[in-house]
Amino acid sequence: MSEVLTLAKKAREAANALAKTSTDERNRALVAMSDALVARQNEILGANALDVAAARAKGTAAPLVDRLELTAARIGAIAEALKSLSLLPDPIGEVLSGSRLANGIWLQQVRVPMGVVAMIYEARPNVTADAAGLCIKTANAVILRGGSMAQHSNLMMTEVLASAAVGAGMPEGCIQSIESTDHAAAEELMGLHGKIDVLIPRGGAKLIQSVVQNAKVPVIETGVGNCHVYIHEKADPAMAERIVVNAKCQRPGVCNAAESLLIDEAVYATFLPPILTALQSAGVTIYGDEKTLSLEGVEGIEAATEDDWGTEYLDMKISCKVVTGLDEAISHVNMYGTKHSEAIVTEDYASALRFLNEVDAAAVYVNASTRFTDGAEFGLGAEIGISTQKLHARGPMGLTALTTAKFIAMGSGQIRE
Amino acid sequence: MSEVLTLAKKAREAANALAKTSTDERNRALVAMSDALVARQNEILGANALDVAAARAKGTAAPLVDRLELTAARIGAIAEALKSLSLLPDPIGEVLSGSRLANGIWLQQVRVPMGVVAMIYEARPNVTADAAGLCIKTANAVILRGGSMAQHSNLMMTEVLASAAVGAGMPEGCIQSIESTDHAAAEELMGLHGKIDVLIPRGGAKLIQSVVQNAKVPVIETGVGNCHVYIHEKADPAMAERIVVNAKCQRPGVCNAAESLLIDEAVYATFLPPILTALQSAGVTIYGDEKTLSLEGVEGIEAATEDDWGTEYLDMKISCKVVTGLDEAISHVNMYGTKHSEAIVTEDYASALRFLNEVDAAAVYVNASTRFTDGAEFGLGAEIGISTQKLHARGPMGLTALTTAKFIAMGSGQIRE
Repeated sequence: MSEVLTLAKKAREAANALAKTSTDERNRALVAMSDALVARQNEILGANALDVAAARAKGTAAPLVDRLELTAARIGAIAEALKSLSLLPDPIGEVLSGSRLANGIWLQQVRVPMGVVAMIYEARPNVTADAAGLCIKTANAVILRGGSMAQHSNLMMTEVLASAAVGAGMPEGCIQSIESTDHAAAEELMGLHGKIDVLIPRGGAKLIQSVVQNAKVPVIETGVGNCHVYIHEKADPAMAERIVVNAKCQRPGVCNAAESLLIDEAVYATFLPPILTALQSAGVTIYGDEKTLSLEGVEGIEAATEDDWGTEYLDMKISCKVVTGLDEAISHVNMYGTKHSEAIVTEDYASALRFLNEVDAAAVYVNASTRFTDGAEFGLGAEIGISTQKLHARGPMGLTALTTAKFIAMGSGQIRE
Repeated sequence: MSEVLTLAKKAREAANALAKTSTDERNRALVAMSDALVARQNEILGANALDVAAARAKGTAAPLVDRLELTAARIGAIAEALKSLSLLPDPIGEVLSGSRLANGIWLQQVRVPMGVVAMIYEARPNVTADAAGLCIKTANAVILRGGSMAQHSNLMMTEVLASAAVGAGMPEGCIQSIESTDHAAAEELMGLHGKIDVLIPRGGAKLIQSVVQNAKVPVIETGVGNCHVYIHEKADPAMAERIVVNAKCQRPGVCNAAESLLIDEAVYATFLPPILTALQSAGVTIYGDEKTLSLEGVEGIEAATEDDWGTEYLDMKISCKVVTGLDEAISHVNMYGTKHSEAIVTEDYASALRFLNEVDAAAVYVNASTRFTDGAEFGLGAEIGISTQKLHARGPMGLTALTTAKFIAMGSGQIRE
């Protein structure tokens, strides 16, 4: 039996056992996992040092090495997050609906664990602990497949977390990482229909695409965001500038950052120059359409190509297009957006309502920055990722995204006539 | 552009337009569709006669021809179902949750249409009208791909339904059928990631498997049911017999019919003979394990093989296995079941609770027939199918399975610090 299949089999056994654990038992396991990360931090730091040295030797870019590197402080923060998770309410067992059927059967729909959750992710080793914690909290077994760059860190963290969880009464196999780093192992995991209940990829567009193309198991797509801010002709120009600059610059490398600016023809000549100047002062390169390029008083704008409308820069870059009005703005967003986060800036009531109703995205904003699309900002307590698909979960996913429902029917001998 | 791609493009435009329609407009369209089916029934019956004649000429089995054949009465019933749909509450626009965030943003999670729904189904032409009606009700555009055996019927029904819907104000392209009957067209449809929001296959295990293996778009798996009735040692034997006979025989060709009987070792020698005799009197063939075969007083039992435990007969056949007790029963169900509908018969409180908690299935029953897993029986108003996956919808799916959610955020200039 292959490594992946062996792990999947153990995970299913663990999932069946986890379904019998109580809320208190799982919360105690989370605290034990948190304590173990701190108690065994030297082992984790030692493994991480190997990954960091290898990454540096390969000439990996400094920001990537920074994402990879663990410190005692970072491990402390990861451990704290596990402890916080133990304090959140347990979603498992919630009765979602219920009724007494006409025939006397007492029917309830109850929230239950997914079973076996798989995660494929890239170089940040903190995802290992996050994913393990979220799955233990929701009584799911988890199979982790981290990026090869963080392999020593991930395997050590998995060992520390799994042995602490098992020591606290969780079943063997509840937290497992795939040791093989070749692509075939990842593809095998994606193909285990019936053995994996849900696969959640976390990473860049390339990883997500690979999963979408290859997976036979149910997938929750996450995190690709080509987000727009649309400045309507009735916008308050100072608010528009504040929102555009925040949505682009506050953290440009994340999925809810703005990648494209749309503005109404009626106001672009007056509103746009100070906004573009503010963006440029912050270090943003602007890719403009013809009208933007012909603006007076703004220098150094690059010419946008058709490709720019569909590009998620994840960088200090923004595309800019002048539109004829609300209709064109909504069409453009629905055509080029990735259905993540979209904002309109306007003081006009009817235009705000139309944008909210007609834009097809996980989160639609009036007069606020797209940067708010986030589990913590939305008050979800914990975040698994941001779903950009419509099935199951959409937008920031809290613990309930790792659950499903089961109908429970209590009868007294009823048969169907 | 291929036929399928052309249809998908039109469907997206239709979906955007449907998102703007009101509940009343869509309900009026459903009534118009219902009226048109009756008014144009001769055209539909004419097209159906071609399909029926071709099926007979090919020597198709009588039950299949019966499922294919339409009559004025059947069209009347289909038309009635569309009218009933118009009377159900509209799920679209429901506010699922909402709060005022600390920063003043007013956040709501609102139920919205999926967008473009695709259905691939087999020979029953009534599914064409069902699917079209469910999608118009929920403001989704639908692309239908029916079985080639019913192609004339499906295309004519689509024409009648679509022109009535458009005549009542729905957008062009809201209801479309794929004309090409080759497999490449179906595969192309399954691959349209980003263009199809959800694909729902309705049909046998082979169709479902083909979709699971080939689809790149999000899928809701439906309807394969290897369902068990487990007779616990503390069961009331008369109730056990009534439930087993009902679960197996009331309608053996459907997914919630029982396919396997488990019984405790402690009682099988006394409980099983009358139950098996009752099943045999009803015309059921029994595939038994060794203990079942060695029962005295019951003749004509076939020997079960390992394959029988995993087989969905959809026929007057049942497998029968003697288990050591609750633990083995739960393990067996979780190993061989398809997570559809599972029942225990017992008078013991603790055993009932354990079965409900530990069996992993869409619907779990105590002392009732598995045949109740059904949208109408569960009071869902309309049924799209029965999901056997855990993502998005599980068990009988009502209208809400064709919806997703959107976060709507109303701000007053908030930016993220």
